[in-house]
Formats: sequence, C-alpha cells, structure tokens
Amino acid sequence: MLIVMRHGAPEEDISRVAATIEEMGYQARAMPGKQRTTVGLVGNDGRVDGSRLAALPGVQEIIHVTKPYKQVSREWKAETTVVRLRNGLTVGGDEVVVMAGPCSVESEQQILEAARAVREAGATVLRAGAYKPRSSPYSFQGLGRAGLELLARAREETGLLIVTEAMDAEEMDFVAETADIIQIGARNMQNYSLLKRAGRLGKPILLKRGLSATIQELLLSAEYILAAGNPNVILCERGVRGFDPATRNIFDLSAIAVVHGLSHLPIIADPSHGTGHRDMVIPMARAAVAAGADGLLVEVHPSPDRALSDGAQSLYPEQFDRMMKEARLIAEAIGRRVAEPAEIRA
Amino acid sequence: MLIVMRHGAPEEDISRVAATIEEMGYQARAMPGKQRTTVGLVGNDGRVDGSRLAALPGVQEIIHVTKPYKQVSREWKAETTVVRLRNGLTVGGDEVVVMAGPCSVESEQQILEAARAVREAGATVLRAGAYKPRSSPYSFQGLGRAGLELLARAREETGLLIVTEAMDAEEMDFVAETADIIQIGARNMQNYSLLKRAGRLGKPILLKRGLSATIQELLLSAEYILAAGNPNVILCERGVRGFDPATRNIFDLSAIAVVHGLSHLPIIADPSHGTGHRDMVIPMARAAVAAGADGLLVEVHPSPDRALSDGAQSLYPEQFDRMMKEARLIAEAIGRRVAEPAEIRA
Amino acid sequence: MLIVMRHGAPEEDISRVAATIEEMGYQARAMPGKQRTTVGLVGNDGRVDGSRLAALPGVQEIIHVTKPYKQVSREWKAETTVVRLRNGLTVGGDEVVVMAGPCSVESEQQILEAARAVREAGATVLRAGAYKPRSSPYSFQGLGRAGLELLARAREETGLLIVTEAMDAEEMDFVAETADIIQIGARNMQNYSLLKRAGRLGKPILLKRGLSATIQELLLSAEYILAAGNPNVILCERGVRGFDPATRNIFDLSAIAVVHGLSHLPIIADPSHGTGHRDMVIPMARAAVAAGADGLLVEVHPSPDRALSDGAQSLYPEQFDRMMKEARLIAEAIGRRVAEPAEIRA
Amino acid sequence: MLIVMRHGAPEEDISRVAATIEEMGYQARAMPGKQRTTVGLVGNDGRVDGSRLAALPGVQEIIHVTKPYKQVSREWKAETTVVRLRNGLTVGGDEVVVMAGPCSVESEQQILEAARAVREAGATVLRAGAYKPRSSPYSFQGLGRAGLELLARAREETGLLIVTEAMDAEEMDFVAETADIIQIGARNMQNYSLLKRAGRLGKPILLKRGLSATIQELLLSAEYILAAGNPNVILCERGVRGFDPATRNIFDLSAIAVVHGLSHLPIIADPSHGTGHRDMVIPMARAAVAAGADGLLVEVHPSPDRALSDGAQSLYPEQFDRMMKEARLIAEAIGRRVAEPAEIRA
Repeated sequence: MLIVMRHGAPEEDISRVAATIEEMGYQARAMPGKQRTTVGLVGNDGRVDGSRLAALPGVQEIIHVTKPYKQVSREWKAETTVVRLRNGLTVGGDEVVVMAGPCSVESEQQILEAARAVREAGATVLRAGAYKPRSSPYSFQGLGRAGLELLARAREETGLLIVTEAMDAEEMDFVAETADIIQIGARNMQNYSLLKRAGRLGKPILLKRGLSATIQELLLSAEYILAAGNPNVILCERGVRGFDPATRNIFDLSAIAVVHGLSHLPIIADPSHGTGHRDMVIPMARAAVAAGADGLLVEVHPSPDRALSDGAQSLYPEQFDRMMKEARLIAEAIGRRVAEPAEIRA
Repeated sequence: MLIVMRHGAPEEDISRVAATIEEMGYQARAMPGKQRTTVGLVGNDGRVDGSRLAALPGVQEIIHVTKPYKQVSREWKAETTVVRLRNGLTVGGDEVVVMAGPCSVESEQQILEAARAVREAGATVLRAGAYKPRSSPYSFQGLGRAGLELLARAREETGLLIVTEAMDAEEMDFVAETADIIQIGARNMQNYSLLKRAGRLGKPILLKRGLSATIQELLLSAEYILAAGNPNVILCERGVRGFDPATRNIFDLSAIAVVHGLSHLPIIADPSHGTGHRDMVIPMARAAVAAGADGLLVEVHPSPDRALSDGAQSLYPEQFDRMMKEARLIAEAIGRRVAEPAEIRA
Repeated sequence: MLIVMRHGAPEEDISRVAATIEEMGYQARAMPGKQRTTVGLVGNDGRVDGSRLAALPGVQEIIHVTKPYKQVSREWKAETTVVRLRNGLTVGGDEVVVMAGPCSVESEQQILEAARAVREAGATVLRAGAYKPRSSPYSFQGLGRAGLELLARAREETGLLIVTEAMDAEEMDFVAETADIIQIGARNMQNYSLLKRAGRLGKPILLKRGLSATIQELLLSAEYILAAGNPNVILCERGVRGFDPATRNIFDLSAIAVVHGLSHLPIIADPSHGTGHRDMVIPMARAAVAAGADGLLVEVHPSPDRALSDGAQSLYPEQFDRMMKEARLIAEAIGRRVAEPAEIRA
Repeated sequence: MLIVMRHGAPEEDISRVAATIEEMGYQARAMPGKQRTTVGLVGNDGRVDGSRLAALPGVQEIIHVTKPYKQVSREWKAETTVVRLRNGLTVGGDEVVVMAGPCSVESEQQILEAARAVREAGATVLRAGAYKPRSSPYSFQGLGRAGLELLARAREETGLLIVTEAMDAEEMDFVAETADIIQIGARNMQNYSLLKRAGRLGKPILLKRGLSATIQELLLSAEYILAAGNPNVILCERGVRGFDPATRNIFDLSAIAVVHGLSHLPIIADPSHGTGHRDMVIPMARAAVAAGADGLLVEVHPSPDRALSDGAQSLYPEQFDRMMKEARLIAEAIGRRVAEPAEIRA
C-alpha cells in the first residue's frame, strides 16, 4: 500500500503517517519525490484497511498495490482450476461446456421439450430457473420446488446436468438437493450471507458477475466462497450496465482475458443476458469462445413467443443448433473442443 | 405497451402480434405510420411481460408506457408519504432529518462518543452498522449482536433514534428488535427475499439505491416492500457507479427530483458514500438539502484516523457541527427546517 | 510515478525498469514490499509518458502520482482565478453569475423577447447558439453569422453580455468579434485544434465538460488553453453520460467540489443539459449554487413549445423568475450573492 | 413519433398536442389506453424535433420510433457496402482486412521497421499517426507533415496502404494527399465541421466510435459524411468508457452485431484501444473476427518499450505474427478469410 502525500505536506504529517503505519503493525518507508512524498506500507498481508490512513492530515490518496483477494488469485495457485462435474464433464480444461435451456421452468412439457432440444443439439448442461429474481413483484417468480422436481425429471430423461439459481440461504439447501451446479445470480453477487452458505456446500457454484461489478469485486465475492471451504467456483460474464439502449447490457468479453490473467478459476459467458437480443446471441457466442471462455450459458426456448420471461433473448431450437455448429468450429480453431453429451463421450 | 414493428413488416406479422395480445387478454390497436406500424396494447394493468411479444417475427422493439410499479407511484397516491418515527420525528414532511454516526459500531466508547457528538451538533438519528457488508471476506465485518446492544445503550443515553443495516432475513429479526429504522443496503437492493421480509415488518425501512440501479428499479424494489404490507419506506440516494476515479461514486442528486416527481415516498441523501471524500461531504450535504432531500445520512467518527472502515469519508465532529449549521441555513432558504433533537423539540 | 512490479518479478526485470528510468533522465528508487516491489520514478516534471515503462517485462501497473496538468492546478497558483468580464462582472469571486437564454437564436423577435425576459428576472449574461452542434445532419444547425448579429443587437438593447459557441477554428474568429465569452461545447472538449486557437484569443472561454470526460481530462483540456496564453477559462459541469433514462445525463455536482479542490479556475453549472427536464432545472439550480458553483447556465425560451431545439428542458420565463429568487436565497445562505444586471449594480 | 401523455392529462392537453402536430405539418392519431393516452405523429420523415412537443403541458415522454438517420441505414440500402481500396483490397466483403502499425510515426527507422514487420506477418494496411490527439498539451503531438512523408516512404517500400488520422479541416487536406484511408478519431466523432469536410473528399474515411457514443450517435456521425457526398465510410469499435480500471475501456463487441443489423456500412474493431493491455489484444482480436468484424486495427511497435506513446498496448512483432495466424483460423471457421498483402494476392 502506498500513501501519497499532498504537495507541500509538512514533515509532521509524513511522520504521523509513518507512526500510524507502525502502530498498525507494519513498516513504513518514505520516498520523497520532486512534487510530493509517497510513503510505502511494507508487510501488507492483504488485510490492511487504508481508510484509516486516508483520514490523516496531508494524505492525498491511498494506492493499493497488494490485491485484496488471495485464494482466487493466480499468485496463490498458478495452475488453472478444473471443476469436475458428474459424467466426467469438466469446466476449465480443454472442453468448452455449453449450458442451455429456458429462462424459467414453466411446465413439464416445456422443460422436457427444451431439454430434449438442447441435448439433441449437443448441450451437456440444462439451465432453467425454478426461483426467479424479478425486478417487479408482479412478474412471474418461478415455480419453486415444483420447478426443481421438473428439472430432476428432465435430467433423468436426458442425462443432462442441471444448473439452477438459489436466491436465499433457505432455498439453497433445496436447490442443492437437485442441482449439479448452483447458480448465484448477478443481483446477489454481493449477498454475503448467500456466498458464505455456498462456501459451506460441496457442490460447484456458478457465480455471475454483478450488474456493475468490477472484476476485482467479482473475484472478492468468489473469495468469500473459497474462504468458506468450497473451491469449485465457476465465474460467469453476463454483461454489465451500459449507456446504450441498443443492447440490454454491455457484454464485456475482455473480462474473460482479465480473469484468466488474475485468477485460476474458470469463467464462462452468457451472451443471452449479455446482449438481450436473440439476433446477437450467435455472433457473441462465437466471440466468447474465441476469447477463451470455458463455457457458454445460453437461453433456448421451444417457443420463445410463449415464454413467460426473457422471450426476446431466447433462441429458437434451430438457431441453437446452428450456434452449436459454429461454436464447435471456433473452439477447434483455438485448439479446444465443445464438450459432447454423455453417450457420445462414452 | 407499444409494439413497434420493423419497417416493411408484412401484414401477417402485424396480425400475429394483434392475435397474441388478444390471447393474452388485452386489446390490440394498430397504428400505421409512414415508416412502420406500431401496435398498441390497451388495458395494460402493469403486469404484462412484453418479452413474449418481443419474440414474435417482425417486432422491432417493445416500448413500456405503463410504469411497472403501482403502489409507490404518485398516480396511485398523490399526497407525499410522511413516515412517522418515535419522538414525533417525521420523514417526508417539512423537516429535514439528519442521521449521523460512524460507519460501524467499534466499541462502547467509540459509539457513545460519536452519539454524543452528533447529538450535540443537532442530529436526531444515530447511524452505525452492527452487520457490515464488506467486499472482502477479510475486512472487519461488524460486531453483530454485541453491536446492536451498544446501539441500544447509545439510544438510552442520548435519546437518538437508531438506523442500522440488516443483511439477511435471519438478522433482520434481531435488528428489528433494536432499530427504529432498518436499513437495506445498496448491495441488497435487489435481494428480494430480504425485501419481502422487510415488507412483513411494521418498522420503517431505509432502502438505499443499488450501485447502478435506475430510479425505476429502486421504485420497483420499494414496491416489493409495500406490496408485502409495509408502507413506511424511506428511499436513499447514495451515489451510483461512475467512470471518474476522482470520486468514489457519482452522487446523483437529480434522483431526488425524479423520485419526488414519480413517487410519494420520501428520499434522503448520503453524501458520504456519494462522494467518498470528507472534503466534499459538506458542499454535497448543502446541495442535497437545496435539491429537496427529506434528510441526510452522514458518516461522522470521533477520530476518523482510527476508524475500522470508511475513515476517509467520515467527518470530524467539528466538521459535522459546521455541516449542520450550513444545512439549517439552506433548509430555511427553501422553507423547510432541520429537525432538532427531542428535548429541543419539546 | 510508481512502477508496480508483478509478484515474483525477477531481479533483472527490476533492474531493467530502473535502467530505463535513468535512461529517460530521471532517478529510480526501488521499494521492495512483502508481495511485490515498487519502483519510484523521482524527478517527474509531469511530462513522463509511462507507457514506455508499462511495456517492460515484469511490470504490472503504472501509477501516476504527479498530476499531468500544471498551470490549471492549485499547486501552481493557490488563489482562485477571478475572470473579469465587461461591466465589472466577475466569475470566480463572491458573485454567482447567471447566464440564461434559449438554446439557439431563432429570430430577432425570439432572441429579443428572451433577452428582455431573462434580463428582467436578473440574468447578467445572455446565452444562445448561432452555431449549433447537432447529432443529426438534418436538425436545425443554427443561423450562423446572422445569429451573431442578432445577439449583438440583443446586447445593445439589454446590456446583457453574450456567451455563444464556436465549433471550429474558422468560426471562432467571427464568434470572438461578437461574444463576450466564447463557449467550447461538450462535444469539442477534446478538439485540440480548437482549444489551441482559443488559447491565442484574449477573450474568456467557457469550456464545457465532455460527455464522459473525467475531471482530470477537463483540466487537461483547460491546460491547452492556458498553455497557449489565455488564462481566462471558466469551466462548466453539464452532466455526464449515465445509464438511467430518467434523466438526459447524470448531473455530477460533485465536480464542483472536486474542481475547486484541484484547480484555481472557476466552474459554473448547467442544470438544463444536466437533467434534460424542465421540472428538474429549478431544484438542480438551487443544488448547484449550494454546492458552490460560480455561476449557472440555464435555458429559457419565451415559448418553449415553439422552440426549434431543446424545448423540453427550457424554462418558461416565469419559471426562470422563480429560479432566480430561489438562487438568490441559497447564495445568501452560503455567504455569496447572485450578480445583478448592470444598472442595478451601478 | 409517439407522444405519451401523463396519467389523467385533461382532454385539452391532448387536443393541444394534436393541434401542434398538425401545425408542424404531420397527422396526429390519439390512442387512449387504460392508464394514459398516447398520441402518434404520422408522416414523420425523420426530421421531426420532438422537443417542441415535449414542452407541451400534459406530455410525459416522447418516444422515437423513426430512426433519425437515413442513408446509413439498411432500410435505405439493403446490400452491405463494400469499400474498395487500392490494390483491389475491399472492406465489407468476405475479406477481413488487418491494419497494423505503431501508435505514432516516430522516425524513419521506426516506421520502416514497423511496416516491414507487419507486412511480413500479413497486414495489408499500415496504421500510424502523424497528428496525434493527446489529453495533455505536454505529450508528444506527432511529427506532422514530416510524419506523412515518412508514411509515404513506408508505402513505397512495402506496398502497404496507409491509414492515418486528421484532426482538423486544414490538416485533412494534407492528410488526404498521402493517406489511402483518413481516420477520424474517437475524440472527433462529433466534430461536425470535420465530418462535413470528410464528406466532401473522395477518399475512404475510418470513423471511430466516440468514448461514450451510442451506436445511434455513431451512425448519425456517419450520416454527416454520407449526406455530404462520400459513401465510403468504415466504422470502428474501439472501446467505450467503463467503470472498471482493469481495462482502459470496455471493448463493446456487440457493437459489431448491432451495426450489421442497422446499417449497411462495414465495421472493424480496434482491440488495442479496446483493452489497453497487450496481453488482451490477441484474445480480443480473435473475438472480434468471430463476432463478424470486417477488419482489425492493431498497434504493433518494433520495440514497445521505446515507444513514445501507447507502449503498453502495442504488440511485439512476434506477437502480431501469432495474432495473424489465429485470426486466419477464426476467419476460416466462419467462412471468411484474412486479406493477404498485394504480391501474395496477385
């Protein structure tokens, strides 16, 4: 940590900063510059809260050199984490895992139809919400436990794994009984009670980036889960809030490269929420794979014009089929491969 | 709701949109324009989910004319809501209520000292966190229940009311036992389980705007609380995420005018989080009052350079005293007054 | 400037950084930390371009401690700049100067009517565009030179000073013949050819903040003008691009406090563009004065529903009159006063 | 255009809106809804300025259905524009054109070395600035005309075409003498005097998206050029301003899909400015090609650690070579090909 002093800060201000650093149990090292002095805090274990120093007279700015996260960083663990799922499927290795399905479970017929369609096209994980976070209290909020049961039935029939969201600690236990991967949604990325609970489960967690979260904040939220004992975290870029109404969000594909540089955790991409428009999902799915995403999370609905939520960004099954073909070609071009469903794998 | 068709969309696409609207139980009214046709959905009760229509062929865009919130809107209730607190204090009327105190409860001495200082300067509500949402799992997370007890003691001694945060449903019950106002923080603005629980309590709720929430989203989150039965909601502008590192957030004071136009709920402003720098708190507190804020939420610490969190944005007691004096002058200039502590009121 | 090395960067990388710094003519000072080494560049005169160092192996990040601007900074000149206009009017002192008028000059009748109305209510400077930057090539682009002549006539009749925009170097000379203050608009904040030309004029320049410019970028653009020889620069906050369609821009009033801290230049605020809605102009004008703005720039039109541009954010004359009354009260509450028109001043 | 009235707006307000629309020369069509009335303006030729209507009493919101641009839209011209350059090179067809080189021309040796290196790796256009827009007046501003001469020499030697920036109208004529493609930079995207001048030239124009420009604003700026007579416009996505310091900008690859949907103009991508970090350029270049970009604009420097600007985001020649190999594979995977240098083409 570096404490930048104001131009012309008197010697006593600098000494007070140094004394405070030492009182906090670290070493201080002053470095006078042409315009201003900088004081280094040496021995930072990542837990120093700079606001106390920022409050001292003569201090202009605090600069964090040490990253505030630990276990999620590449410096802590150099090899990429490979999250192992059932059926031998892995996220973070050579395979690009495609998770697809409708926004929400709506009925037995709908979810089975969707599951068969995405299975046929080559998806390996079925996505669909039983509990839905909705901006309005009057919007469809999901089928709840009944939805979880329908998901279990779809898995039974198709062999697909299940990823589905839990919105609070109580629900998380039910969700964990059914899901192969538990999703923590964008709105809950900084719901620390939920993160801690996820950290006490053994199941893989899919952690979506918050609507305006920096990568550092995303990694810190993952750190909550690892620090509580669960190393099986898959991150997900799903677009951040932007200023242009042309897309629902700005799909920040650089996040994939940034995460791969800073962390050993795998990261997948969600071009459906990332763009909000069906027409952009295929090109952005290709772009995500080309950027190095470890998987895709895509909304597909058997009949989008009858969807109870997110119809505008859901692919028709035939579009998903085309998306899969293109994703395979792109994956091969960069030396990876799209994971194939179980029987084909066997 | 208006469904804008693409330029040159064939008649059958337009008919299909109209048929779908009618199948959904509403009336359709087509309006051909020079470049494209728009179809109006008549009879919208605010619960129509447009994504189903957006998925139809030939549809370019869905435009929401009806606001998705109801009970929080001025159209639902024209007179401004006045939230009544203990001691006869009100939020939303002529009074400007100042809530002040440290970021977190750190010790008995600290919180009592802070409470006395802000009481002396004229605050009427003590703010301080017992449960703290922190980006890093390694940062100080608050004293928990012990902190709540210290807050109760501070109230006993000073007569100040207490506002403090609850981060999950379980905590909310404990917090409700002590707090006069329960805060839902920015990170939890869309934690719907928490909002629903808050709606089942009788106590006033202070709902902070999320880091990149639109006003409409803030109002929809408030709608969750009202819809669950609790009408005593105070909104709070606390800055939104911006691109300029010169301030911690962009303090969006227009939000006050926007909320006052769209909703009957009171809204206060938090210039401490809004700016992140002590030097900007006083001018921004003045600006908030001038803009029409129904109150202020301000961080004050007896010795900011010893604070365990948010030291850089906490005022020194003597600065807070000056802030109060200036806030009173501004309030008077616009025909309001800063609420004074109980004895003075009596 | 501080060069932060990667965790575990080998000694040779550190030496290479140090050698490069010395080759560039500065001193290097290495400071080893617990997790990584930082190398300080000592002797920075504000002209060092860090990208060369950022390119060296082992470098993680470059941190700028020295501000890249000079003449605009408070460290260069501690006393606040007071820009002196004709008629004894000043910007940057105790007076709050109100500049008001229509978005564009539309006709002789319109501009004279507007000038009389704002003069009557107490404005001292008339604003109106003769050259208009419009997003669309098909929108009204201003009357050009004819508009400048009408502005001159309005000044003659009312005694108001004139502020009007120049969009390119050629126009700037014509504009300078008429205008008392030359405006450089938000879209041209980084039009360096225009800034340099403005720097060679003697007239005061009103420099508006770009749509997503940081304060540092705004100050650097002002530095172009000062560096070219013109010290009479008035900055203007006019809202930055945001994500919420509820307002046209986010009106960033903290910018006033930030600028007053970093620079000696005066800064005014434009609540019309800052919000985009007439209903919000009055509360935001009050907030701007309370925040310490050195003036206001406000759109007023004799009949906004006939305006050729920006009708929705233009005040009716009677609203402007009310705004002036409230602005005076707020200015007095903070120990300033709204500048009054010439005769009244005499 | 749709004019949404406030809830409960009286009949006379609705009539006044209708009368104003007819006075403006269009037809009005009122559509009463359950909550509020909407009035449609029929006959909009894209030139209606809604602000006049927005100013009328009872009006809540103006909704633009008609796009404000014309000649750049796919509705105006359905077939994709193919911009033809010298040597038979085309932008907008099957070929993906790679433009590469240093940020600025620094010396004869540097530019020739860079030109040879990028030519060798397979680039077809040399990029380098002779006139450089720099935030600070004290940064290196480019070699000016001497730089243009060096670029001409590099073309002579390598056969590469030249793309270089013009910052004002005067310079544009000199630049046009040398350049094969004239670049208008992000900071000048709304410099309308420059756009109009570019529209009067016959040469292809590379128009970069502004730092926080919406796609609609980018297309409107292109419309200025087409409306003035020059149809040869190539758009460029180069990242927009974001909130995360992890990258210099947010590289908005969805812009490619959005532009391809709305406009017939080709669009290329600049992953160097888009990310600001050399390590992210290769994955983002792959992603851009996968997303459908019609070309790439990439910074390559013979020795980035000696670059006078943008060193941190410039590729080493060997990295660029690798990028080209990967870009070719991705292009093939989606049925396109990277354009090859002239002799190879012959």
